[in-house]
Amino acid sequence: MTDHGGDWAGFTETYGAPPLDFSANVSPLGVPEAVRQAAEAALAEAERYPDPLCRALRERLAAYHHVPADWILCGNGAADLVYRLAAARRNGKALITAPTFSEYENALTLWDCSVSRFPLREENGFSITEDILTAIVPGLDLLFLCEPNNPTGRTTDHALLERILEHCATCGTLLAVDECFCDLLDAPAEHTLLKCLQRYENLLILRAFTKSRGLAGMRLGYALSQDAALLEAMGRGGPPWAVSGPAQAAGMAALEDESGLETLRRLIRRERPRLSAGLTALGCRVCPGEANYLLFFCGAPGLPQHLAERGVLIRDCSNYHGLGPGWYRSAVRTEAENDLFLKIMEEVL
Amino acid sequence: MTDHGGDWAGFTETYGAPPLDFSANVSPLGVPEAVRQAAEAALAEAERYPDPLCRALRERLAAYHHVPADWILCGNGAADLVYRLAAARRNGKALITAPTFSEYENALTLWDCSVSRFPLREENGFSITEDILTAIVPGLDLLFLCEPNNPTGRTTDHALLERILEHCATCGTLLAVDECFCDLLDAPAEHTLLKCLQRYENLLILRAFTKSRGLAGMRLGYALSQDAALLEAMGRGGPPWAVSGPAQAAGMAALEDESGLETLRRLIRRERPRLSAGLTALGCRVCPGEANYLLFFCGAPGLPQHLAERGVLIRDCSNYHGLGPGWYRSAVRTEAENDLFLKIMEEVL
Repeated sequence: MTDHGGDWAGFTETYGAPPLDFSANVSPLGVPEAVRQAAEAALAEAERYPDPLCRALRERLAAYHHVPADWILCGNGAADLVYRLAAARRNGKALITAPTFSEYENALTLWDCSVSRFPLREENGFSITEDILTAIVPGLDLLFLCEPNNPTGRTTDHALLERILEHCATCGTLLAVDECFCDLLDAPAEHTLLKCLQRYENLLILRAFTKSRGLAGMRLGYALSQDAALLEAMGRGGPPWAVSGPAQAAGMAALEDESGLETLRRLIRRERPRLSAGLTALGCRVCPGEANYLLFFCGAPGLPQHLAERGVLIRDCSNYHGLGPGWYRSAVRTEAENDLFLKIMEEVL
Repeated sequence: MTDHGGDWAGFTETYGAPPLDFSANVSPLGVPEAVRQAAEAALAEAERYPDPLCRALRERLAAYHHVPADWILCGNGAADLVYRLAAARRNGKALITAPTFSEYENALTLWDCSVSRFPLREENGFSITEDILTAIVPGLDLLFLCEPNNPTGRTTDHALLERILEHCATCGTLLAVDECFCDLLDAPAEHTLLKCLQRYENLLILRAFTKSRGLAGMRLGYALSQDAALLEAMGRGGPPWAVSGPAQAAGMAALEDESGLETLRRLIRRERPRLSAGLTALGCRVCPGEANYLLFFCGAPGLPQHLAERGVLIRDCSNYHGLGPGWYRSAVRTEAENDLFLKIMEEVL
């Protein structure tokens, strides 16, 4: 088994059929057709090495985000860039939140960083509070934030986020913000720190095509920073040819598909409150998530097993630091799928 | 620019059109149609995460190589597995040959291994001699061999290779053998160390779909070893989801295509002596390579530039340890392409 959601292959092995997968926060709308076609065309040239520097893709990303292409490094999914970042800050002191995406700590520990955890509390809706400022001190090399956070779906108040960034700059701390789910917030432009890249050399932003662009299976993420030495160290922090040719082609096509992203965002905006209300009505304690997934607590014993027997896979969050038994994460999917999920939850509870 | 061959994208940027690429040792026959179709079918499901454990692909590889599936770890190309191996042997003492594929040393250095180089000499046809046995001593953690070696195309005498493996076992040294080009030797079965996996716990073999299966652009390699703890450490030595969904599908299809591999092998066997003779006739000193590429020396100044101006890209090998200015590597391609390459070489020289 794996430590993450989305293990449809393991589910299929155990239960004989693929799940209705609410455990992975991927797009329920599938791969956009134009994107699929672009990747398909690239397959015809897959006998040659991919461009290790992803030049054409980085040019498109640069135009899309209005930054120079040298500020961008592409990777084999954002997770690859998390590991490369840890390589570039090896032996450092790092701060993460708890709960959060477990690969930050896995990568940091692999690279001999010491990791402290800033606890997020349910009574604060798992939001980051300004207490975090006292934990950012000179000598802290790296602060990892996930905005919106996985698995809570919460964002940090934007004014506080900017204070954190400024305070990191004062302390010589690199702020790495994982914005992989940012595009699925109701108002991504208001929340992203992209606009701060020009001003802050100590800012690195991670993004991916995994969730918002329906491309989890292709493996494509990227990092943005004005710190050329940092990106260069990350480039050396793993093998060349990180991104396959078809993934590069798919990424370029995906950037053209703003209407597909807007459709997905509207779906999430409409369905999330419905799913949240449905889970609440069933007696679950639902964290007020802002993205395409919801963290909830449900005391019923054996919930994942009972759901699995009915073909549904959810993310058991008991292995997250800062959570424990009874915490689960559910993706927000299409209206029909969410209805089916709620119906099966009702049967089980 | 990159440190490797196959930088068609950089060439295109500089010269305005893609090269006739003799710099990368990839299949000149392109992606096999059945393999392309399998990857294409997988694109339709690329919105879900790939199986991080590559279960189905590993089962097929296990059947193909007659080993248990747990002896196999898949990676984002063999280069990914080189880095993961270095992670698993961090801070160790390693021995490599010179010249050889530069990513071994890059990975080992990244992971704080000390690296010694066993020099291969032109007067020995760049073959490994039994002198290497004296360099394998207790305390040596890792010996990296590339069989056939890149960029020389030479293999080690098989009896000597087995003595090296046995001597490594005695010294507690892990022998990692990169067999990425093995399938393109005239007689792969005679040369591979796959048959020794069962007997030697200190053996790890790397293989890839890059060259022999026309899939460099997809990124898919794998490691074989009976040492479960080693494979587990390599699994943790980088991000999960290393291999994309389409690459897993392509790999499974490629294993069914033995006739395509045999066709490619026959082509290489026929064309290599022709290309070698042609280069020799032009005054080049050609290393007696055994795979789908040839290392040669040519004193003519500015050779790569002159070729590039005529649309041909070769691998300048001056940056390999153990080589220097005047050394180049050329792929072996189709009859027509080899003829064209020789014609342009003749014009230039």
